[in-house]
Amino acid sequence: MTVTDDSGGSQESSADTEYDLIIVGAGPAGLSAGIFARRAGLSCIILEKGVPGGQVLTSPKIENYPGFSEIEGMKLMEVMAEHARTYAEIREGEEVTRVVKVGDKFEFTTTSGRFVSRAILLATGSYHSKLEVPGENKLSGRGVSYCATCDGYFFKQKAVVVVGGGNTALTDALHLHSIGCSVTIVHRRDTFRADKHLQESVSERGISVRYDTVVDEIVGDESVSAVKLRNVKTGAEEEKATGGVFIAVGELPSSQLASELGVKMDAGGFVDVDISFRTSAPFVYAAGDVAGGIRQIVAAVHGGAAAALSAFEDLTRPYFSRSA
Amino acid sequence: MTVTDDSGGSQESSADTEYDLIIVGAGPAGLSAGIFARRAGLSCIILEKGVPGGQVLTSPKIENYPGFSEIEGMKLMEVMAEHARTYAEIREGEEVTRVVKVGDKFEFTTTSGRFVSRAILLATGSYHSKLEVPGENKLSGRGVSYCATCDGYFFKQKAVVVVGGGNTALTDALHLHSIGCSVTIVHRRDTFRADKHLQESVSERGISVRYDTVVDEIVGDESVSAVKLRNVKTGAEEEKATGGVFIAVGELPSSQLASELGVKMDAGGFVDVDISFRTSAPFVYAAGDVAGGIRQIVAAVHGGAAAALSAFEDLTRPYFSRSA
Repeated sequence: MTVTDDSGGSQESSADTEYDLIIVGAGPAGLSAGIFARRAGLSCIILEKGVPGGQVLTSPKIENYPGFSEIEGMKLMEVMAEHARTYAEIREGEEVTRVVKVGDKFEFTTTSGRFVSRAILLATGSYHSKLEVPGENKLSGRGVSYCATCDGYFFKQKAVVVVGGGNTALTDALHLHSIGCSVTIVHRRDTFRADKHLQESVSERGISVRYDTVVDEIVGDESVSAVKLRNVKTGAEEEKATGGVFIAVGELPSSQLASELGVKMDAGGFVDVDISFRTSAPFVYAAGDVAGGIRQIVAAVHGGAAAALSAFEDLTRPYFSRSA
Repeated sequence: MTVTDDSGGSQESSADTEYDLIIVGAGPAGLSAGIFARRAGLSCIILEKGVPGGQVLTSPKIENYPGFSEIEGMKLMEVMAEHARTYAEIREGEEVTRVVKVGDKFEFTTTSGRFVSRAILLATGSYHSKLEVPGENKLSGRGVSYCATCDGYFFKQKAVVVVGGGNTALTDALHLHSIGCSVTIVHRRDTFRADKHLQESVSERGISVRYDTVVDEIVGDESVSAVKLRNVKTGAEEEKATGGVFIAVGELPSSQLASELGVKMDAGGFVDVDISFRTSAPFVYAAGDVAGGIRQIVAAVHGGAAAALSAFEDLTRPYFSRSA
């Protein structure tokens, strides 16, 4: 392993600093990876284009990360970043613009420098497609949610609207129905594209559906109070009272670097990983939302840790250390 | 879903109380599963033969569960159990002595009653084989460890002994070497059974090995100070000073219930699961150490959560709800 100081990798900001592992993204996956990598003796650094935390930062309240029965997303990520910083340096505002493999090294170009590593962990996350309607951004986290597994429970027994027609939308609707919500699915087309069994379950439970309908506006002052709906075939408009709007119209992985490295991805662009969080390319790992699976903090911290331990295993193999 | 009260499933202790999901084991996997299952609207209960916490309870200090930079194992599990209890009832001292599938229900016999469920999560954990030598129990957690990934970092730059000759022992030795420990591997046979590449890496790094050697005693007052070694071929004895003893002579899954249910297991008895933590049997899930993988809290909380969400998916399928 590259010799480093105790505080998380060598601290110079010079060009071409070389690390065993470079972690891209400081959400829960990247932060967990930093902890496990350094504890295994790998030199590493976390490059984060913004500030640490990833998508969790936008959650006003997290109740499902075991050990924290209720905490603001921003606060949880502060605590986690502080924990990770005792092991690994996090370079904020450092966006990776390009990564190429040259021989057995990865060469990174960032917005402010160059780095070299022997292994790379993609923890770049994903983002939710938005409706792009008035009220959506203003009320995000105040009745507007993009994740029923994360936030559904806050709306127990309330009236909620789910927007979308795919597997995620219908699963969200069933989840919300299961905790006693009065659910209406709003879908812009006349048929769902979700799996048949989900459609049957929705129908069997008598969950209300508005087909051919779009949301024109999300209404509310402090929190969501209603949605303005419009039937795209008849033009009929309606203002429907609701306590929450779950938007499930697509999730897009931030997989540009994965593409550059040529790793295998699924049809949606999420990086394929095995149970050890290795990708199809040697010394390239992926964890967190960019690697698909359940989009939860618990999954991200596991993926990051497992990927770091896999990197340790791979970097410790003799054929590699001989070339180092 | 079965209708239940708000506090984590129906509270009667009567025979044959029926739940959507019964979770066996209240370590990190079972506790996380309880949180996610209830938040998805499943009725569930956690049956624990002892007290909540699992193997973590024996760790004096945990530094690698993101969000807690340093916490006693017992304290962390207290916090996690309290969190889980806000969702699901944990029945302590309730050992499952038998489980059978009758029709589409699982029937449980425990040390104090009977329960019925539509799905079951095995979160029964595993345990480490011991050397069974004087000093081992007394100094456990005070220099004696069974997990280098968990505890290695506390021994950074110190002299340590690793006992064993398999993949785990050699990986542990490499891990400890990588963080600057002076490592001696003690192995009772004259060859390792670990993979060749691990043997090569150990040899390449000049890690010291005592073949044909057993530990007769672990010595120390407050913490480990030495091990008494004996060469089984020559009979030569030696007292070797050391700050830590990492015992890697085997890990055994608690998979009796898994056997009863006939789920597929690997050669070591760990339950085979897919990426959604489903086993080979319908409506049977497994998570945490009993399901193999990296034996870490992060993996357990992920497995429990993912298994609970899989159970929700499966229990929501129409063919099942029709029969309910």
